[in-house]
This record gives sequence, structure tokens and C-alpha cells, in this order.
Amino acid sequence: MYNFDFYNPTRIIFGRDRLDTLDKLVPAAARVLITFGGGSAKKSGLIEKVRASLGNRSIVEFGGIEPNPRYETLMKAAEVVRNEGIDFILAVGGGSVIDGTKFICLAAHFKGDARDLLKFGFARITSKTVENVVPFGTVLTLPATGSEMNSGGVISYDHGKYPVMSELTYPKFSLLDPVVTFTLPKIQVANGIVDTFIHTTEQYITFPVDARVQDRMAEGILQTLIEIGKITIDEPENYDARANLVWSATMALNGIIGVGVPQDWATHMIGHEITAMFGIDHGQTLAIVYPSIMEIRRTQKREKLLQYADRVWHITTGSDDEKIDLAIKKTREFFESLGISTRLSAYGITADKIPALAEQLKAHGMTKLSEHQDITPEISLKILQNAF
Amino acid sequence: MYNFDFYNPTRIIFGRDRLDTLDKLVPAAARVLITFGGGSAKKSGLIEKVRASLGNRSIVEFGGIEPNPRYETLMKAAEVVRNEGIDFILAVGGGSVIDGTKFICLAAHFKGDARDLLKFGFARITSKTVENVVPFGTVLTLPATGSEMNSGGVISYDHGKYPVMSELTYPKFSLLDPVVTFTLPKIQVANGIVDTFIHTTEQYITFPVDARVQDRMAEGILQTLIEIGKITIDEPENYDARANLVWSATMALNGIIGVGVPQDWATHMIGHEITAMFGIDHGQTLAIVYPSIMEIRRTQKREKLLQYADRVWHITTGSDDEKIDLAIKKTREFFESLGISTRLSAYGITADKIPALAEQLKAHGMTKLSEHQDITPEISLKILQNAF
Repeated sequence: MYNFDFYNPTRIIFGRDRLDTLDKLVPAAARVLITFGGGSAKKSGLIEKVRASLGNRSIVEFGGIEPNPRYETLMKAAEVVRNEGIDFILAVGGGSVIDGTKFICLAAHFKGDARDLLKFGFARITSKTVENVVPFGTVLTLPATGSEMNSGGVISYDHGKYPVMSELTYPKFSLLDPVVTFTLPKIQVANGIVDTFIHTTEQYITFPVDARVQDRMAEGILQTLIEIGKITIDEPENYDARANLVWSATMALNGIIGVGVPQDWATHMIGHEITAMFGIDHGQTLAIVYPSIMEIRRTQKREKLLQYADRVWHITTGSDDEKIDLAIKKTREFFESLGISTRLSAYGITADKIPALAEQLKAHGMTKLSEHQDITPEISLKILQNAF
Repeated sequence: MYNFDFYNPTRIIFGRDRLDTLDKLVPAAARVLITFGGGSAKKSGLIEKVRASLGNRSIVEFGGIEPNPRYETLMKAAEVVRNEGIDFILAVGGGSVIDGTKFICLAAHFKGDARDLLKFGFARITSKTVENVVPFGTVLTLPATGSEMNSGGVISYDHGKYPVMSELTYPKFSLLDPVVTFTLPKIQVANGIVDTFIHTTEQYITFPVDARVQDRMAEGILQTLIEIGKITIDEPENYDARANLVWSATMALNGIIGVGVPQDWATHMIGHEITAMFGIDHGQTLAIVYPSIMEIRRTQKREKLLQYADRVWHITTGSDDEKIDLAIKKTREFFESLGISTRLSAYGITADKIPALAEQLKAHGMTKLSEHQDITPEISLKILQNAF
């Protein structure tokens, strides 16, 4: 097991009918900005319920944070924070709204050019970088990104996607009510399942370092997703299935399963370029890239792929290569069973467009991906062509 | 899955050679009290290394916190905190030192009679109860209780053991270096393994509520302990085995596996009485009580016992009752393989002493134990007699 640090102070409020706790969690005298996305939180009546829970606090709303939240949009919200004297933000939404809100909290009182905050990449922004960060909480509406219990976000600017991470941007609390997610479109639930699955494999299918508890927790999340994935799409109001999805999504990226182990974020990085260039949903891009990564990287990931085949899919017969082949096949079939195609061609992308994706990876400095930092743009190209 | 709240802000610093981080983690201007136990941390040179890491901070030492830390001892430390103007405490030790330090932090500036802090039981002490709590961190020397990453402690007073819990007493940080634990006596490591095992089963072998991730995490810890338990006793300097034990112990009681599930702390409560009356190690009392609880409570715990037999011990043949019998037998054999006897009689306790234990449970209000709150002192007596 590698040395590690772990810290996660986000308070979780999980379950049915928990909105009344907002009154205790949001500071009593706070002037609150509610951030949200395209309007479904408004239409469903959730924003009104949230407002009611906040009693007679002064409230300002900022809607319209888009999927893959854009720098320009977030800077408008940051201006509202300053102009309105906001001292607490409540993000009501999924990963994009929460990611975007983290950036708003950092940018609102940042002294310099806020675009500089995008330049840190995976180097964490500290209190030396940003002195005054607006505190925030979340009401989660979409189980997928885990942003409700971590300190990271991905912000879109120009034609790139930029990771922003800081201990300063852990939500103070996140309210996770599975019932709130019952009305989500099926495709969003399916995308969330794939996102959760890949967050888990990125921290698990690398190479073994004898981190037994972490491995088994990752396997536990993967098995749970396989068991309840199709059920929670087909039966959106099945509380138990949805509750297991919501908690799996949070646990997959709150840091717990990733402590002390190698990590491989290649699928996300390659997927981000597909989203940026073709506008394909994040979850869909992961379902395209990951089976191909498993195929192309079967040598480097051999031991963990065998462990995955054994413990997650219970594949016990055949040669080692046959076991790995079957595990990859089953992974692909699982994604497809959720209604998510796993081939680039299924999304109308033609083969001639693929080299440009590898060029974009190069342009964004994504030249040493994976747990071994040895996936060059040339190998990424091969992965993408294999995913065609 | 039940509704739940989760909050755990303790920072973990895990791995080899991490003592230098103390200089960053302890406030620069702090006047520090180092608390420790019977002297092994002193003799091993650890206290000296810790002092060196703290640079030129002003340091006071308080040693002699005993196993099952006593109120009177802790009140002496609280007096030192006041008299010496201490503003940060560093606990260097195992569960007893850390539990005791939590109480010192609460009691030092408490306005009333500190014995009242023992009366809250499992009702949590809040900032309304105690206004000024001394912050503290820990350097863990014994993997067992999980106290390094939770907010609870057990304090001995008169002839009882009292739980003390508060969000105010999460360690600010805990430094977990498996190497520090290499020199522990074998019996303490064995006790730590059993304690970790039972912490896990108390949150897992109850009744099913469809909390899949939590169940699989619990099963992951149990399987890890079974795999590495004997190895880490026989080969104390096997880093990987010990690292897996240390992290298992922390994860078993930091709240993560217990969210949204029923809990059964009967084994601990009955075990506490055995320790209080006969001075038998905490871990040993758990190894005595738990196999008997599984036998006596096999009806109430039937579904979870079958799941445990299947997923933890991979028992796939035989009738359901045979599977449960075999799982109990294997649990007992596992404890015995660590050098821990699982029968009261093995510790020199005669059968005529058993009724007094049940009387003590009654005297301490432990009349409705278990996840069903239906273990009366009469049933506890039966459990103890069955454990003879």
C-alpha cells in the first residue's frame, strides 16, 4: 500500500424527507445564492421547497449553469455573489452545477484573473492562492460525479476542460435524497451509472499494491452497480435500488476507495476530448473509451483484470486470457444493457475524425496518461480507433 | 437503506516516515501536551522523535494513561492543560490514550462537574454542553479501536465503563505509521484484530436493509482480517500485512461501514462487564462473547449469518443451518488461531461467577441490547453461560 493522506470534511445528510435539515445547516443569518442548472430543478418544484426550508433567509437565485459548466457563466454568478453580498451558496443540481459552484466560490473574491485558477490543473489551490472562499452546500439531484462529497470540479473554457481542485471547496454539507432523483430522464441515470463505474475502475484496475480493503470496496461498488443498474433505470421509483446508486456514486469519488493505490484517469481524459469536440455526454464517452482501454492495456493491467474477472464477474473457468476477454465482454454488455452504446461509430462519428481527438490530447498536454504515465497520444489514437 | 447522517473531518496521514508532517499539522505557536500510556512509547524512543518533529514548540508531557482510562487520571491531565496553558494535545498511543485524550479535551475547560459528561451515554455532547474544547491530534501506536478516526471514547469510572461521544472530539489529524506498531506484543496485535473484526460484525451481522455498498465494505474488512491476521502476528515486520491491519482497524469504526444500517453493540456491552469485573483484555472478551451471540441469536440474525457464511467464508454447500454452524465454527477457529481463547473457562472464570455479570449489565442499564433491543439481562446470562 502506498503512503497517503485523506481528508474529507463534507457532512452527508442521506435519505427521504431531509430538506428540513437545511434550516440547521445553512448559517442562520446567511444571504444565500441558490445555483442551479437548466430549469428542471425549478420546474419540478424542488427550488421552491428548498426556499421554503430556508425560512426567512434572504435568497438570490442563479440558474442556467450548463452541462460542462462554462467559465463565462460562472463568472457571471461570481459577480452576483459580490454585488449581492452573498455569504453562502446552495448548489441544487448534479455534477455540473456543483462543479461550477466550487469555481464560483473560489472566483468570487479572487484578487487576480480568475482564468489563472484553471492553470493549476491537478496541483491543488490553497488558501495562499485564494484567501476568501465562499462556503457552500449542495442538494444533489443526479447521482454520477461524486462532486457532492469531494473538492474537485471540471470547468470548460475555450475548447478545453480544466480540472480545479482545492481543500477549500469541499461542500460544507450535501443533502442526498434518492426520491429527488426519481424524475430524472433514463439516459441521465444510465450516464450516472457508467460514470460511477468508471470512477471506480480508474482507482482499481491498475496494478496491485496489496491494498485489500480499498480493492474490496471498489469491487463492492462495481458489484452493486451491476446488480441495481438496470433495475434503477427500469424502475425509477424503486427506492432501495436508487438509494444504492446514489450512495455508490458518492462513495466512488469521495477519496475513500482511492487512498494508497495507483490511479489511472486516462479514460476520463480521453473522454473529455470526445465531449469537447462532439458534445457527446460524459458518461457515454466513458462507455466508449473504457472497454477499448481494457483491450489495449490488457498487459499492463493484467493482474487487476484477472482479479476483476474473478471477484466482480465471478469468472472462474478458462485460461487467463479467456477470463480477461470475458470480463471485457461483460463490461461492454453491461453498459449496452443500460442503453449506452460503446462504439464511437454508434454516435455518428466517422473514422476520419479520430486523429483530431488525439491531436487535442496533445494540445492539452495529455501526453502521459495512465497509472504508468505511458499512454502517449499515439496510444490514445490506437485506443480511440479500437473503440470505433 | 435507512436514512443517515455522516460527518468525519479527521485528516489521515498514513504510511512510512510521516512524522515530519507533525510540524505542519500542529499549530505553529501551540503549547503542546503530549499524552501517552504506560511508557512503551517513551522506551521505544517514539516520544523523543515526536518531540523532535515539533521543533521548538513548548511541550509538556503527561504519561500514565492506563488501559481502560480512568476518570481520575484524565482529570489530572485536564488540570495540567489548565495550569500549563495548553492549547493543543497530541495523543501518542492506542485506543485508551486517544479515548482518554478526548475526555481531557472536553473536561479541561468544562464549567460544571466533569462526571456529568459521563452521563450523556450515547446522546452526543454538543457545543452547548461544552463551550471550549481543546483541539488534538494523534500518533497511533496500536491498530484496534478506530478511535484515531472517530469521535467516541470509553471512560472508566467507579466500576463502570461510560461511552462519551461528541462531534467536538474528532481528532484534527491522525498519523498512522504501520512501522510504529512493529514492536507491539503479539497479544496486543491479536486483540486489535479481534476488536476490528467485532466492530465490523456489530455493524454488519444484524438484519438486511439492502445497503449493498456498506455490506460489501464490511465483508471486505472481514476477509482482509482473515487473510492477514495470522501473518501480521507471526511476521510483525511484514509491512503490507500490518498496513492492511492498520487501515482495516481505522475503516471499521470511522462511521463509513455503519451508515444507513442497523447496529448491534451487544458484544461490546457484555464484554465491557467482563473486563470491568475480571480485568480480561477487551479483545479477549469480544472473542468470548461473539461466537456465543451468533449461536444464541441465530434466528434473529439468520439472513445476515447466511450472507456472512457465503461471502466471507465462501461456504456454499450444506443446509442453511449447517452453513451457519460452519461459519460460527470458522469464526471461533479464526480467533483461536490468533492465540485468543473463546471460552470464559479458559480465563480461569468459574461458572458460579457468571450471574454477577448479568447483574452488572442490569445495574448499568444494559437491559435492551442488540439491533432489536431485545437482549434482556436474562438473555445476556444465557449468552454468557453458553460462552463458558
